[in-house]
Amino acid sequence: MNKADLQKATTFAALLERGWQQGSLVCVGLDPDYERLPASVSKIGTVEEAIFVFNREIIDATHDLVCAYKPNSAFYEALGDEGWHALVKTVHYIKATYPNIPVILDAKRADIGSTTIGYVQAAFDVIGADAITVHPYLGKEALAPFLERKEKGILVLARTSNPGAGEFQDLLVGDSREPLYQVVARHVAQSWNTNGNCALVVGATYPAELKQVRAIVGDMPILIPGIGAQGGEVAATVQAGKDSRGWGMIISSSRSVIYASNGPDFAQAARNATVQLRAEITGS
Amino acid sequence: MNKADLQKATTFAALLERGWQQGSLVCVGLDPDYERLPASVSKIGTVEEAIFVFNREIIDATHDLVCAYKPNSAFYEALGDEGWHALVKTVHYIKATYPNIPVILDAKRADIGSTTIGYVQAAFDVIGADAITVHPYLGKEALAPFLERKEKGILVLARTSNPGAGEFQDLLVGDSREPLYQVVARHVAQSWNTNGNCALVVGATYPAELKQVRAIVGDMPILIPGIGAQGGEVAATVQAGKDSRGWGMIISSSRSVIYASNGPDFAQAARNATVQLRAEITGS
Repeated sequence: MNKADLQKATTFAALLERGWQQGSLVCVGLDPDYERLPASVSKIGTVEEAIFVFNREIIDATHDLVCAYKPNSAFYEALGDEGWHALVKTVHYIKATYPNIPVILDAKRADIGSTTIGYVQAAFDVIGADAITVHPYLGKEALAPFLERKEKGILVLARTSNPGAGEFQDLLVGDSREPLYQVVARHVAQSWNTNGNCALVVGATYPAELKQVRAIVGDMPILIPGIGAQGGEVAATVQAGKDSRGWGMIISSSRSVIYASNGPDFAQAARNATVQLRAEITGS
Repeated sequence: MNKADLQKATTFAALLERGWQQGSLVCVGLDPDYERLPASVSKIGTVEEAIFVFNREIIDATHDLVCAYKPNSAFYEALGDEGWHALVKTVHYIKATYPNIPVILDAKRADIGSTTIGYVQAAFDVIGADAITVHPYLGKEALAPFLERKEKGILVLARTSNPGAGEFQDLLVGDSREPLYQVVARHVAQSWNTNGNCALVVGATYPAELKQVRAIVGDMPILIPGIGAQGGEVAATVQAGKDSRGWGMIISSSRSVIYASNGPDFAQAARNATVQLRAEITGS
């Protein structure tokens, strides 16, 4: 895609490409825990407003540094009504203010048939996200209503970042004795991606597995959470995860960025942490 | 558990046992699609109120017939704010009015670590459900915050009811070359269930696979969606799915019950459909 086309582009894939071309592989995870908000924010009247202001300050302080934002739905749902409102307001704020930055709703959804359509409407039409993370277990057929949304991004969990990820994901499958997470990556790359809107999710805590997935999926985007607080290392991640152009990654950090300071300087501290992460990635 | 203990019991397992002892294996899926509501309901002012009234009428008409209710979160999330409110109101209504009927939140959640805690709070503390459905892909360790809630029910997807369920679930894994869905069932029965709060989910559309899962998990409860509109047959389901006492199943039907009539008699029609399903199960 040339530069003029990219300027006009609004699909998830094109917005992501635009961010990469501008030199950023960094994604900030907007995962606010009300108990951990700086006092300067939590003193604001309602939970909804405090969460939204916290996010907005971090977004305003980092928007020129990131290729995506990734709110995780669980943190908002835990707060009920007010959390749900804060999530919707946050996504709408990003899309209204920085329309070229794609928002990945980290909701890890997946259901079947008509039920999946409900999640598609919630994520894309109500919340207004550009992309969503999904579980692979129910198969491509169940996720068709997601995959049919050509302009959106469908990020499929392959190898997750948690210590116990291998319980099923490492099981050796069939005659080829390929681990399940690699089979998932192969199915997504070879069969699910007819609309060019798929991506994989692989935790930064598993660089060897990340390298395997990259070898399978070519230049498909890979969302890589787990940098920072979870222990993923930047240099190992970049070496294992980069595509043929040295890009192809959405390297996501949440707690290390959004809680970089607990004082009234939290937004500036989040910016500094993002600048540092970006420099580490560039230097890797 | 004797009858006196059961009267006092409030855990998901005990509430379910109580329903079974009273002769019901039927679960009604509360999956309202606003477009399909009877005109007598949709003319009510707001979406929130219409959905809630629709659910309440069906609940009031079927409460003496069921062992559980199962709202699927996707149908509510698709309606945004008002849907979310209607879901919370519906669950609170059931627990306030019919406290002995357990509510299974069919939300198919699963995330890692601190994020999973958010979903636990949302499902059990905000919405107030007695149980939740979860994806197995991330492993036991990721789901620990769910499994630690001893009084709740954690229903793990094993073999789903959709036509394409086999894409990953039928893959033969490990040295034993056992299908993945059976490995999931085995792990849940042998390692995840230390608090006695686990159950499996197996679609009624796959009676042969249901029989395999029953053989693996002993008398563990199995939630069986897919009866009715999806094509699952009652007799085959009961023969394949019953435990050593002839129970052990939560046989769930949604569309065939809640849309049994589109007229002002929809609640009575839902009752009739539930009576019929219960009779079919008893006669199988």
